[in-house]
This record gives sequence, C-alpha cells and structure tokens, in this order.
Amino acid sequence: MGKVETRSCRSRAHPSLALAKYWGKRTGGINIPATTSVAVTLEALTTTTTVQVHPCPEGARPGDRVMLDGEVQEARRFRPFFEELRAIAGVRSLPGDSCFTVDSMNDFPTAAGLASSASGFAALATAALAALSGTANPEEVSRLARIGSGSACRSVYGGFTRWEAGSERAVQVRDETWWPDFRVVVLPVTVEAKAVTSREGMNRTRDTSPFYDAWVGDAPRLAGEVERALEERDLERLGTAARLSYLRMFATMLGAEPPLLYWLPRSVEIIRELARLRSRGIPAWETMDAGPQVKVLTDRIHAPLVVETFSELLSLPAIVSGPGPGASVESL
Amino acid sequence: MGKVETRSCRSRAHPSLALAKYWGKRTGGINIPATTSVAVTLEALTTTTTVQVHPCPEGARPGDRVMLDGEVQEARRFRPFFEELRAIAGVRSLPGDSCFTVDSMNDFPTAAGLASSASGFAALATAALAALSGTANPEEVSRLARIGSGSACRSVYGGFTRWEAGSERAVQVRDETWWPDFRVVVLPVTVEAKAVTSREGMNRTRDTSPFYDAWVGDAPRLAGEVERALEERDLERLGTAARLSYLRMFATMLGAEPPLLYWLPRSVEIIRELARLRSRGIPAWETMDAGPQVKVLTDRIHAPLVVETFSELLSLPAIVSGPGPGASVESL
Repeated sequence: MGKVETRSCRSRAHPSLALAKYWGKRTGGINIPATTSVAVTLEALTTTTTVQVHPCPEGARPGDRVMLDGEVQEARRFRPFFEELRAIAGVRSLPGDSCFTVDSMNDFPTAAGLASSASGFAALATAALAALSGTANPEEVSRLARIGSGSACRSVYGGFTRWEAGSERAVQVRDETWWPDFRVVVLPVTVEAKAVTSREGMNRTRDTSPFYDAWVGDAPRLAGEVERALEERDLERLGTAARLSYLRMFATMLGAEPPLLYWLPRSVEIIRELARLRSRGIPAWETMDAGPQVKVLTDRIHAPLVVETFSELLSLPAIVSGPGPGASVESL
Repeated sequence: MGKVETRSCRSRAHPSLALAKYWGKRTGGINIPATTSVAVTLEALTTTTTVQVHPCPEGARPGDRVMLDGEVQEARRFRPFFEELRAIAGVRSLPGDSCFTVDSMNDFPTAAGLASSASGFAALATAALAALSGTANPEEVSRLARIGSGSACRSVYGGFTRWEAGSERAVQVRDETWWPDFRVVVLPVTVEAKAVTSREGMNRTRDTSPFYDAWVGDAPRLAGEVERALEERDLERLGTAARLSYLRMFATMLGAEPPLLYWLPRSVEIIRELARLRSRGIPAWETMDAGPQVKVLTDRIHAPLVVETFSELLSLPAIVSGPGPGASVESL
C-alpha cells in the first residue's frame, strides 16, 4: 500500500430530489436519517467532478484540496468524507495514503436548495473510488457519498430511490425508464445561497421543534404513500403525498427556536398560483427543500405550461427534467 | 316573563389580538379552547353595535335579524348565541321570548383576519344583555360572547387578558393603563375575506394535523412566557414568545390535510423585512392570525418607522393601536 503515481478520474452525477423528505438525523453515526426518503434523480442538472490521487505535498498532510465551481472549498466540510475514503482504501489495500485534488463543476446554482451537495458528493465518491481502484461498486459508493452529504447516497442511483430511516445507504426502487412522462420543473426564485445550511437547520429542528417527534412518526406513512403512487405512476397521488411531506417538513422547521423560514415571497406566490392551476385541472404539485426554490411535479405535456406561467417570477430560467441516470465514471 | 315593548341598546367593543394564540377547540361544549391564550384589546379598531329587543314578527320565530356593515347575515352563525341568550334570560326572568334585531358596524375590514368576530360578539353580547336587563356583568358577557366567537370572550375586557384552556370565559390580567407605550401596528395586506374560516380551519387542524397534540402540549409554556413578559413590560421577551406562538400555530395548520396556508407573498415579505429591522436593533416582532394580515408588536417610539417601512406594501393604511378599553354600553 505504497504511494502511487498520479491517477485521475472524471465522473458525472445528478441531484436527488426527495418526494418524501429526509429531514433530521439520528444521533450517533454520520448522516443517518431519522425519516425514510423517496426521491427522483434529475437528469437535467449535472455535476462533473475530476479527482486526482497523487503523492501528498510535502509538509501538508492530508493536503486534500477541493475546488467547486472554480473556488477553493473549506477543508473542514470534506474531512469526514476523506477520512472514510482512506479507511475504505486501507481495508482494500489501496493507495489511500495519497492525497486528493478535486475539481467539481455544477451546471446549476450551488448551495441554493437545488441539492448540489447530493450530486456533488455522489460524483466525488464515484470518481474517488474509481481513481483508487478502477471500479466503483454502487453500494459502497452510496455509503461513502452519504458521509459527505446525506442525500448524496440517493444520487448514486438513477430513476427512483429509497433511503430507509436508519440506513447507511440508499437503494434503487425503479430505474430511469420506469416513468418516462414524469417531469420536474425547477423554478429558481433566487440565486442567493441560503443563510442557514441544511445541516444546521436539521440539528436546530431536532433539538428545539416541538413537532419533530410527530414529523418523524408521520414520515413512514407518507413515504409509503409516495412509493405506492410511484408503482402506479399516479401523478395526482404522488403530488398530493409529496406536497404533504414537504409542507410538514417546513412546518417542523417553523416550530424550531429560533424559527426556520426558508420561503421567499415569490415561493409563496408560486405555491398559491399552483393551487389555482390545480383547481383548473392542471396536474402540478410543488415540493421544496431547505431553501426558497420551488420544484413542480408534473408530466411531459404540462411542463411547458408550468414554465410559461412562472417565467417572469424567476431569477434564472426554469429547468425541466425527467428522471435521470445514476452517477457514472466518465473517463479513468 | 311576558313580551315587552321595544328596547334598544348601543355598545362598543374592540378586537382582541392574541399574543399567545388560541387555536383548537376541545370537543364537547361550544368554543372551549384547547390552548390558553393571552391577548391585548386594541383601542384603534372599533365595532359599534345596536341591539333592539322587540316582539317577534308574526309567523317568524325566532325572527332574529343581524346586519353587519349594512348586510344581512346568515342566521345560522348566530343561532347558538341567541339560544344561549334566551337561556340566560329564562333563568333571570327577563323577556327573552322577544326577538332581536342587530345592526353592527366595524371601522375596519371584516372577516379578513382582524378579529372582527371578537369585537363583534363582545359588542353584541354587551348590548343584548344590557337591553334585556339594563346591566351587563362582564363575567356573564364574556361567557355569552364566547358562544358566538371564541376570542370574543377576551374582547369584553380592556388591556391584557387571559383565556385559560378549558375555560368558558376570559379574565383581565392587566388593564389598559398597564403598559402605555405598547403599540400594535396592524398591516392589512389584503381586503379580501379569507377562503377558510377560523372555525373550519381549527377543526381541520385538530382532526388531521400530526402536530396538533404537540401544539397543545407546548402552548402553556408559551402563554406563561408571554404573561411574564407582560408583567415585566419586556417587549423583546414578549415579541420573541409571541412570534414562537404564531409560527407554531401556522406550522400546526400547515400540517393539516389538506394543508392550510393563510400567508400571502406580502405577508412573507413583511416577515422577512421585520427580521432585518430587528437585526438593526429596531424592536418589532410580528404576529398573525388565521389570515394574511400582519400585526407588529412594537413601542410608541418605533411605531411610525414600522408604518413608514411597509406603507407601500399595504392594501389599506396601517393602523397603530395601543391597549384599549373593554366592551361598553354607549346608550340604553
């Protein structure tokens, strides 16, 4: 297990959008979810990541370096991930005492509630393991990606995924060919990064919201409802359950002390306008994550109407996505 | 207890704004609260109500008639109130087999989340009992007003009031002279009546929100915190606790099925701008009720700045109010 020459690998991954939400971590372990989430991997948003494994620079161990969209990232955020990567390398007699240099690019706004950390760590885990060993077993990648960011463990798989409460990795429920007409319209209402990270928000919610236990207790029923809707490709059933899930997640945060409110006025404008669209028979249900962006669950036929309805409210163009593939190695 | 000649009485009452919120009714009884509320009676908004007691029109029993802002109201809403009024009259050997004609005027928007039902039923109960008996004992008036609308039992009293969970009437905590510098700035963002009444919203929340039990369980602590802040005339402590109370009430509603969302984009704009004002040291905390209007808790010195900050966002001019007096008989 000596140092090797520099090796590099490039990977691609797509964000995972939860239909039944992950919000809250169990104590003990890293990013072990308190709620089962069910998600779709979004084809239209992509993270591309290149990882180099190389001898560590002298006097700078571990000396890992991560660039995201051209900016050097804080090392602290990545430390648990690289520690786990080195542990895996040790078990498998790989050259994990080398250092890692990462260059990652998103083709969409970062840290603004568009799940860039999910695709980011899925791509990073995929490329790093492949650079070390030439192969990337999805189960191992999913477990490693989770260390960096919880929902990244779902982005490793294409199509529709489930991440069980208490589990260290996600599984695929249905692949990306299961529901070809399913569409997500991403409506970016702001380009600003959010003031409170998901990590901080989750912990504050768990520690101070009187609603947290009820949220965790109610989540399995909603996750089951979302999975049944997926099996039936029933958009109304899916949208209704996904809407309950995200609103209850936001309600739980709103109960925190101090309260957590990620909504902007435009988020509420879109929420209310979608209710009017549904009352006219248009199948379009929103979901949101820990940020002000709105994502609309709809179908291929109605996606253009959703885009047209909201285009004037947006800070960036709307993005329409179908279910996408899992994380993959581009070049080794 | 025979019929009497026509007698009439005019009364005035002011809305009651809850600082620790009432949301949810116990089953059994009429408008028996599940949570203790603590409120302030608002001087600047007034309901004026004239009640006539007169022989019932032939062939039309009970033949009661209520006009509100010049429009005849649906009789069903008022039936439990008049039944209770007649029961009280029976016990006291008053001429309750007569009929009632009511003419009520608000100097502010009705049914738009400005507690017009609180001042309305407080004024009605005051005038009706006075017309029957020439006197109006506040405890009896509070109990009767509650039958029409829960929070009306608080509007009967001036200053600061408490309505205990499970109680049939409110009590006064401190009168209107206790905190002369305390101000509420009412910011009306819309003149539209809300789509879901408080009554319907409360029942839906109790029956379907997974957060309801936690809301009821947490409420006593917040009510106690609000009362202690009142005793100390500590605006920051009051505002912080009142903010937790209303946000947790809204969170509980958001968890209902289907979800209840009373906010408009402008409500959220005001909420976010107030957070910025507080970060600059301006003492101003919002509260909201089952509607999109925002009410800001502040002091005499800062009320003009709050008005100025938001005047362009409003549908109607802002209203600044101090603590007001209880319901009173104007003329008999």
